[in-house]
Amino acid sequence: MTTQLTVSLGSRSYPIFIDESLLDTKSIFDKYISGQQVLIITNETIAPHYLETVISLFSSKFKVSSCVLPDGEEYKTLTYLNKIFDALLEGRFNRSVTLVALGGGVIGDMTGFAAASYQRGVNFIQIPTTLLSQVDSSVGGKTGVNHPLGKNMIGAFYQPKCVVIDTATLSTLPDKELSAGLAEVIKYGAICDAGFFGWLEENMSALLRRDSQALTYAIKTSCEKKADIVAQDEKESGIRATLNFGHTFGHAIEAHMGYGKWLHGEAVAAGMCMAAELSFILGWLSESEKQRIKQLCKKAGLPVHKPSHMKADDFIRYMQSDKKNVSSEIRFVLLKNIGESVLFDGVDDASLRLAIERSQE
Amino acid sequence: MTTQLTVSLGSRSYPIFIDESLLDTKSIFDKYISGQQVLIITNETIAPHYLETVISLFSSKFKVSSCVLPDGEEYKTLTYLNKIFDALLEGRFNRSVTLVALGGGVIGDMTGFAAASYQRGVNFIQIPTTLLSQVDSSVGGKTGVNHPLGKNMIGAFYQPKCVVIDTATLSTLPDKELSAGLAEVIKYGAICDAGFFGWLEENMSALLRRDSQALTYAIKTSCEKKADIVAQDEKESGIRATLNFGHTFGHAIEAHMGYGKWLHGEAVAAGMCMAAELSFILGWLSESEKQRIKQLCKKAGLPVHKPSHMKADDFIRYMQSDKKNVSSEIRFVLLKNIGESVLFDGVDDASLRLAIERSQE
Repeated sequence: MTTQLTVSLGSRSYPIFIDESLLDTKSIFDKYISGQQVLIITNETIAPHYLETVISLFSSKFKVSSCVLPDGEEYKTLTYLNKIFDALLEGRFNRSVTLVALGGGVIGDMTGFAAASYQRGVNFIQIPTTLLSQVDSSVGGKTGVNHPLGKNMIGAFYQPKCVVIDTATLSTLPDKELSAGLAEVIKYGAICDAGFFGWLEENMSALLRRDSQALTYAIKTSCEKKADIVAQDEKESGIRATLNFGHTFGHAIEAHMGYGKWLHGEAVAAGMCMAAELSFILGWLSESEKQRIKQLCKKAGLPVHKPSHMKADDFIRYMQSDKKNVSSEIRFVLLKNIGESVLFDGVDDASLRLAIERSQE
Repeated sequence: MTTQLTVSLGSRSYPIFIDESLLDTKSIFDKYISGQQVLIITNETIAPHYLETVISLFSSKFKVSSCVLPDGEEYKTLTYLNKIFDALLEGRFNRSVTLVALGGGVIGDMTGFAAASYQRGVNFIQIPTTLLSQVDSSVGGKTGVNHPLGKNMIGAFYQPKCVVIDTATLSTLPDKELSAGLAEVIKYGAICDAGFFGWLEENMSALLRRDSQALTYAIKTSCEKKADIVAQDEKESGIRATLNFGHTFGHAIEAHMGYGKWLHGEAVAAGMCMAAELSFILGWLSESEKQRIKQLCKKAGLPVHKPSHMKADDFIRYMQSDKKNVSSEIRFVLLKNIGESVLFDGVDDASLRLAIERSQE
């Protein structure tokens, strides 16, 4: 049975549909498309698997074209964003076009920002095909591209008309990317639901062997939490910032290594372990809870340490330009317990450096 | 005495200040800046005249830097927009930065879009220094850049925190650009105020010799009309589209000639004359009113004909990708009388071609 959740944002509210083989259900999109034109944005990895299927969902009723980008975080730039605008202008798509994001987080973020900006705003739909995008990036309207000096520095808050999660698309996902998605799933448990964290500890093996029921439950629970937090704080003036647990360290890793070298979820996992360490150093998180976070990440096949050559100064340089930082302090999401997170910008330099230095194999 | 108008948009309402030598009034900006950082965006033509003055307005209270772009519509691109992001990231500006647009329409549109997109949205202020930007582009929140296949195709609706119009800045404006600004002033008379149109016919000489009182009155009246229309229809789902009078033809001229060859106001003037001709051909506008529009544009030193080598097919190709077009029809702003405009997308091909062909010296 199809699960339907709602992201409640007044006139901009939208549904999330979750089920196996939703992409066989032609009519699911119809009420979310107002014009006659559809442009599907996808990448070279996803296209051979799903593009024909998705085109056939729309082709009987709409004028459909596609724009296929290269695959990878390193292409999440203004230059490749412009390829979407080229496709839109060359295909003479007008203001009533609906963009469809078919792919992972990079495709979703770029398509959303293209939709926010094309002719100052057109509709878009998310069809996330990776676990990471299904549990996180496709929901909540954060869109954008990277700048060489910082991740997601250029973008918009712009909500889709609907999110369609077909869990069957996970069958073609490489193991490494499944693990990367699990990092964000673990995050929800860590920041706001100790019970879910416990469930993940028990069911990690089932998730890794792609047990359909376990995956569906993990996706549904993650989307519920994300939808709830976004509804409370769409533009991240408060609680939404807790979703960045692990990301302040993680973004620094991604930027320093060069986008695409570490998967986002991998960097977030190492970042969560570092944030847990920092929480422990500050005397907030117990040794045993810190270890549980590290163990669960490890069990999910994720890195639990920073890249070995990356120094404290490397982290601090990137963190200081991170967009979550108000004035010159670095704002961290830290844990008081598993399931209880706080925003804190009073971390002293020595504790921060110690947390980074301890993150070694 | 400083005139203060308000653009009424609920929580996003903002003031427009109009006076001579406002840039000598240090305190005017203070309540519109919430953080500690200011980045002034300007161009190579404006910087030598006003950049030092504007820096000094902020430097006692804020961390101020500037980003100087080359001057011209041909630089209104994603590539040059990225120079602003480079300056923001290299200067480690955070989410609390206020961007200040110091210049004409290109600088205002690019700064506004940079503000809309940097870290998914920061504050900005408009200090328009050309007549065109003072009477039109600085008010209303349309921001963006051009694409080779269409003007302003990439952008956002994003409102400034305030608009500060110092009429003294017009003293350094070249005659050609003064005329270009007058095109938009004439537009307001043509689409919604026959009395103001008559006033312009009487006072065009005073405006051209830069009589301060006449200019201030023209700016104030234009801003009032713009603010009123924007408050009714921020995102251009209806009446705001009448502000595009002359622009459907004008944008085609700009795109065909290559951005920067014709000034925007020049293209709009020729476009208004063509739209008046089309209104006449459709039997709506009288011969004499059509002539009054042409005469007033001519008196303002503006072109009243299309570029001689540009053919009907050239216009139609650009118009069909113009973002105001819903489905495949081209939507025009036409006149029933001077002071009374209508949106119309039922223009037949023969009338359109005739109007274009008649636009010859």
